[in-house]
Amino acid sequence: MNTLTSLAASIDGQRFWDDMLEQAKIGALTPRGLRRLALDDNDNKARCWLVDQGRALGCEAFYDAMGNIFLRREGQDPDLPPLLIGSHLDSQPSAGSYDGTLGVLAGLAVLRALQANGIAHRRPIEVVSWTNEEGARFAPGASGSSWFAGQREAASILAAEDDDGVSFADALARCLERLDAHQVNYRPDPFTPFAFLELHIEQGPVLESLGVPACAVQGIQGVNWYSVTVQGQANHAGTTPEHARRDAFTGAHALITALREAVAEHGESVRFTIGKFALEPNATNTIPQRATFSIDLRHPSAAVLAALDETFQRLGAKQWSGCTVELKASSRVPPVEFDSQLVEMLNASVKAYAPDAPQLVSGAFHDAIHLAHRCPTAMLFMPCRDGISHHPDEHIERDDAEIAVRALADTAGTLLGR
Amino acid sequence: MNTLTSLAASIDGQRFWDDMLEQAKIGALTPRGLRRLALDDNDNKARCWLVDQGRALGCEAFYDAMGNIFLRREGQDPDLPPLLIGSHLDSQPSAGSYDGTLGVLAGLAVLRALQANGIAHRRPIEVVSWTNEEGARFAPGASGSSWFAGQREAASILAAEDDDGVSFADALARCLERLDAHQVNYRPDPFTPFAFLELHIEQGPVLESLGVPACAVQGIQGVNWYSVTVQGQANHAGTTPEHARRDAFTGAHALITALREAVAEHGESVRFTIGKFALEPNATNTIPQRATFSIDLRHPSAAVLAALDETFQRLGAKQWSGCTVELKASSRVPPVEFDSQLVEMLNASVKAYAPDAPQLVSGAFHDAIHLAHRCPTAMLFMPCRDGISHHPDEHIERDDAEIAVRALADTAGTLLGR
Repeated sequence: MNTLTSLAASIDGQRFWDDMLEQAKIGALTPRGLRRLALDDNDNKARCWLVDQGRALGCEAFYDAMGNIFLRREGQDPDLPPLLIGSHLDSQPSAGSYDGTLGVLAGLAVLRALQANGIAHRRPIEVVSWTNEEGARFAPGASGSSWFAGQREAASILAAEDDDGVSFADALARCLERLDAHQVNYRPDPFTPFAFLELHIEQGPVLESLGVPACAVQGIQGVNWYSVTVQGQANHAGTTPEHARRDAFTGAHALITALREAVAEHGESVRFTIGKFALEPNATNTIPQRATFSIDLRHPSAAVLAALDETFQRLGAKQWSGCTVELKASSRVPPVEFDSQLVEMLNASVKAYAPDAPQLVSGAFHDAIHLAHRCPTAMLFMPCRDGISHHPDEHIERDDAEIAVRALADTAGTLLGR
Repeated sequence: MNTLTSLAASIDGQRFWDDMLEQAKIGALTPRGLRRLALDDNDNKARCWLVDQGRALGCEAFYDAMGNIFLRREGQDPDLPPLLIGSHLDSQPSAGSYDGTLGVLAGLAVLRALQANGIAHRRPIEVVSWTNEEGARFAPGASGSSWFAGQREAASILAAEDDDGVSFADALARCLERLDAHQVNYRPDPFTPFAFLELHIEQGPVLESLGVPACAVQGIQGVNWYSVTVQGQANHAGTTPEHARRDAFTGAHALITALREAVAEHGESVRFTIGKFALEPNATNTIPQRATFSIDLRHPSAAVLAALDETFQRLGAKQWSGCTVELKASSRVPPVEFDSQLVEMLNASVKAYAPDAPQLVSGAFHDAIHLAHRCPTAMLFMPCRDGISHHPDEHIERDDAEIAVRALADTAGTLLGR
């Protein structure tokens, strides 16, 4: 007889993988890949497909004011806050079919196992798909989860516009109409889940390099974004001697050398990336008058980020090669530590399959970063090939995925019994 | 009685300055500045204006197959090769009115002084305006002078097209028709002058900083242009640990540090400029997969340029932060040393007015770089405010200019007597 304690073993790996292949058809690109931008026709179609899967399992389907979709399997005690499992179904413009979807369909696999084996559980369980995690069509992302967790106001989310000038509000209205027509129940407001679990691809190379199928995630790095302007003076590259130059490229180069040295003092966990760089006037024989660049700085520790922020501001207040600098933090997202008990439970569930599994800190954002402010939250990662995501080459191994889903189910089973 | 030996003193400073103001009206911009692109209506109008000035002095006017204009004042011995003085009348799109024009009208001032004072001279003198020095409409520049000096074939010059698809050949044909209609004599072929002298604004800050009104120019720096591509791998800025990165920006930064160190070993005369820089995909949270940048490297010594070229190629053959590099020389223009006797004569002429005058090496190209391959050649520089050129803010002091013209006339007087 199957029970909550054997929920992991009850997962139907073949059916889970069939679900993965099925959803990948909605918005499929040729020859491969996925394009399912938030609130576009395919994204709405994926919502309805998910609702249909849940209904076939006897679950009730809900949507809220932000278009988040919930599949609820009732517990023996319907008044208990539900365990929430999920992620997102939307994608980047030219993406793979695992980022996000994996976490939603892992939740669906748990519902299937409960239903197929007639497993009773005190606590209700809901599987969620959050609206617009990617932020590719409407920036910033994580709209549904940040609103649900009380981290962002609806008004600012609704005002966002896509490149064609369509507002989030209008796109959402069409989505909600469609869900209405699909006879999904409207449950407008957020609630407080018992816990939130999210399985996601790592989007980095660590698990693959270790040959590990899954791991528990301890938290999400904090991220500071900076935009830096180095202001010099344009001049003729041939006629201006070194001592008479205020070369914005030279100034930027010297500043970046100093920033790198400061970063190197904080060890291996720092991530420092200059992803954008531009010169003006950008001509071969003209000394640049202005250099602008971005900094993406990440670390799991708020204290380290604060220390580096202070150093960056101090270095930005100096002159470099005669150039003035403006260094502005354009965004600061503090690190999140997941619930330590949940992390330990997931870690134990993973280790049953992969004794060597490490625990990672996520370098990327996920819906869980917001949910962590609403309820005990933790994540599982599984490897993706070459760490690639946001690209049609995104790929996962079925065997790894099955183990990751079983580990998720194992912890879910424990929580559903509480 | 005025003679060649007092030619410098015979210069009419007021008339010279009036000429400068007059030509500045042809293609004037509002509120200031000049736009006289090579072979456009204003450039052709300036040719005719110059012809008219020469004719009023009894000079014969010629044009050659490249539209270069010559004003000839006959010598007592018409068979002697003429002394050639000049520069160019075309400008950058948004320019001042001194770059080029100064050198043509300085020659005109010498013709005026000879004529007004009835000074006889054995050797003929010609004042020249070279076609398309700037290269702003048709690249590359110095078309007229490079062709005249046998440095470039007519066919390659004529094939150039402007941004509107108009060929140099078509624009030149219209120019020549106009000169024909203006009854200018056609003298198609180049000849070998006795010597070529060119007065030009420095386009750099040195003379102004020294408070010196003019100086002799010893030569023109050689210039190597390189285009460099650093190839890494795009990845997520948050999820990719330092050791797993092939960050094209980091690679470029390390390579540039090494290039700078190599350059620094060669002292103050090296000019090293990175004027263009770009990253792909150029997104804040993506590790750059490719960095491309330009190098403009200048030095008066061919040996130093060759040594640095070898070092650059060696550094470019290495990997930097796991990235591969492609470093290609897109252009190599060797340095030119001007005729030492002419330089010394000009230096002596300048020092009569400015005992502290240095001798400079030009960092910018001029028509003289080509003429030096055809006949003994040298240049004079005069200061321009803040070193600015190719901009409406380009400015010179009238008093400095008068001294520079007198120094030119002094040397010209000596050469005309030979």
